[in-house]
Amino acid sequence: MKKLVILGSTGSIGTSCLDVVRHFKDQFDIIGLAAGKNISLLAEQISEFHPRVVTVINKDLADELLDLIGDVDIEVRYGKEGYIDLASMDDADLVVSALVGAAGLIPTLAALNAGKDVALANKESLVAAGKLVTETARINKAKIIPVDSEHSAIFQCLQGQDASVLKRLVLTASGGPFRNFPRSDFKDVTPEQAIKHPNWNMGAKISVDSATLMNKGLEVIEARWLFGVDFDRIDVLVHPQSVVHSMIEFIDGSILAQLGIADMRIPIAYALVWPKRLDLDLPVLDLVSASPLTFEPPPIEKFPCLNLAYEAGKAGGVMPCVLNAANEVAVEAFINGRIRFDQISFIIEEVLSSFGSAPLSTLDDVINADGRARLLAQALVDRV
Amino acid sequence: MKKLVILGSTGSIGTSCLDVVRHFKDQFDIIGLAAGKNISLLAEQISEFHPRVVTVINKDLADELLDLIGDVDIEVRYGKEGYIDLASMDDADLVVSALVGAAGLIPTLAALNAGKDVALANKESLVAAGKLVTETARINKAKIIPVDSEHSAIFQCLQGQDASVLKRLVLTASGGPFRNFPRSDFKDVTPEQAIKHPNWNMGAKISVDSATLMNKGLEVIEARWLFGVDFDRIDVLVHPQSVVHSMIEFIDGSILAQLGIADMRIPIAYALVWPKRLDLDLPVLDLVSASPLTFEPPPIEKFPCLNLAYEAGKAGGVMPCVLNAANEVAVEAFINGRIRFDQISFIIEEVLSSFGSAPLSTLDDVINADGRARLLAQALVDRV
Repeated sequence: MKKLVILGSTGSIGTSCLDVVRHFKDQFDIIGLAAGKNISLLAEQISEFHPRVVTVINKDLADELLDLIGDVDIEVRYGKEGYIDLASMDDADLVVSALVGAAGLIPTLAALNAGKDVALANKESLVAAGKLVTETARINKAKIIPVDSEHSAIFQCLQGQDASVLKRLVLTASGGPFRNFPRSDFKDVTPEQAIKHPNWNMGAKISVDSATLMNKGLEVIEARWLFGVDFDRIDVLVHPQSVVHSMIEFIDGSILAQLGIADMRIPIAYALVWPKRLDLDLPVLDLVSASPLTFEPPPIEKFPCLNLAYEAGKAGGVMPCVLNAANEVAVEAFINGRIRFDQISFIIEEVLSSFGSAPLSTLDDVINADGRARLLAQALVDRV
Repeated sequence: MKKLVILGSTGSIGTSCLDVVRHFKDQFDIIGLAAGKNISLLAEQISEFHPRVVTVINKDLADELLDLIGDVDIEVRYGKEGYIDLASMDDADLVVSALVGAAGLIPTLAALNAGKDVALANKESLVAAGKLVTETARINKAKIIPVDSEHSAIFQCLQGQDASVLKRLVLTASGGPFRNFPRSDFKDVTPEQAIKHPNWNMGAKISVDSATLMNKGLEVIEARWLFGVDFDRIDVLVHPQSVVHSMIEFIDGSILAQLGIADMRIPIAYALVWPKRLDLDLPVLDLVSASPLTFEPPPIEKFPCLNLAYEAGKAGGVMPCVLNAANEVAVEAFINGRIRFDQISFIIEEVLSSFGSAPLSTLDDVINADGRARLLAQALVDRV
């Protein structure tokens, strides 16, 4: 039995992860769950999976949860310490890090510091603090196993391959719902339109990131740290059918690609049991009906976020952290109807341009840069 | 320096192999070359690569070669013994088996019996005597490394993957030049049309095999022996662009595919240095201009050869050997204008139906079955 802790159990990745566990209960033991505010779903998960410990955001929610679940033998924790303790539970074999946004960083670091292998869906950890996170993993001999479909694809392709003959990574991008919109229409895009992803069923924040192509930019930075490959060897290709989930190219011109249906349970399950696989009993990819498969260069002039991410990544230091923080504030403002879709990239660019490329070495550096970037982004949101 | 023997050095695979060696002369030492009848090209290869030993078909050609090359310090052999001795040269590190047709079997077995790793392009060896060849390899701890682009693709995808989680192999097929011809036009197909393959530059026999889909059938049988996967777990998918060279599917629904330009130097070079790779400096696959990629079910009603191969493979024993022999005779008769294109499958089917599924255990069994099938096929050629 593999003992699992899931950070973000009520989100899109967390529920998919529990769906995998549900079908392989003889292989997994859920010992800890951390949620945000969705207490009623967490209560259901407690009654189905019987974790020993759960964590929620604050004491009020913890009390609310205790009322809901009644007389259950469980430890209910809350707040930052609660997340950290859960992420470093003594007997955890694998911590699934699936909180959304920069909030996932501290528990992810806690898990790695405790030497726990981490199945990482929280890409913002690697974007905001890639060097810190990967060094923490290395020092503590903990593995980071990607959950994002693109990085899982690359990870799957890299198994048994020699890194010295790797030429480049090619991340595929659906292009999002507005790939064929003229840029002039971007000002009228509504949050409802942006949240509806053409191929994947995902959370709101990541769906908006997909619509701006910032998601792909964050993934480029994530790939740089996960696989130790420089930015000039990471390319993006738009592939609207989302059948090829990403590729690696070797020095001999050979390319390996991972393909599949657009179902996050495949990369999640792989992260749970890697290097093994589970017989998931999902519909098989039918390449005949999925045909034709097409590939296009990314429309960088229409979607500035992708280049902003490359630039921040190459600048290094605090810049990717600033990019991520500004993006989170801008996307939230867009979802709440405070700014227009085309203002998301504007705000990020403005925030980036007011930062110098200071180094980022410690968690305090991250927290400071993140906080300053958020304040500045919020001020811009209030002004536009 | 890796010491190489190339069986079939003047053919399509042999010359491509030498082209790879030409660019990495510091890594390879050509110690032996075997050709068929193309003495003038062999003479050029001798002057460029300085093998210690060469073999040709008969004494006349050996004498002709000696006249051509003049005063060169080289051993010139001929005939069956010559091929066998070359294939088992004491200091050979790798034997490239690239003779065309069943003629490749005996030298391939000789190499494996001598414990030599074999880069196998001669698929007929595995078709005619898959069990014998793979058991000979196993007993002598010799490796068989595939050279065919499809099998190389699968071999590349399988690196580092656990065979226990493999669900099926998917061989891609270009569909050949007559994929969209009505079957009623097959009677008018000329050898010139059949030899011109749409995507790959190959020899005449394999090009005709591609046009009948028999090539894919032979590859299915080859895959069964190379990878130890049953016929009901080997599928064929028509992919006219020849960009995806083949795929493997796992129990979790994930698919790994190998892609590349249609250049045999990629799989050849991989077979030469596996598990390493060479920086081949070839044009990179541009997926944007290669788009769209399409996949279709194989048109088995129009191309009976594919099903004949599956049936012979499943029947086992002598049947794949009979299939291969009948095919070689029929294809040669077609190339020489003796029979029509649509009569190739007819002859093979007739020959197969007159054989019972006797077991095939020894080289003598192979030679007997092969000989009887050829006689019968020739009789049918003479009659139609």
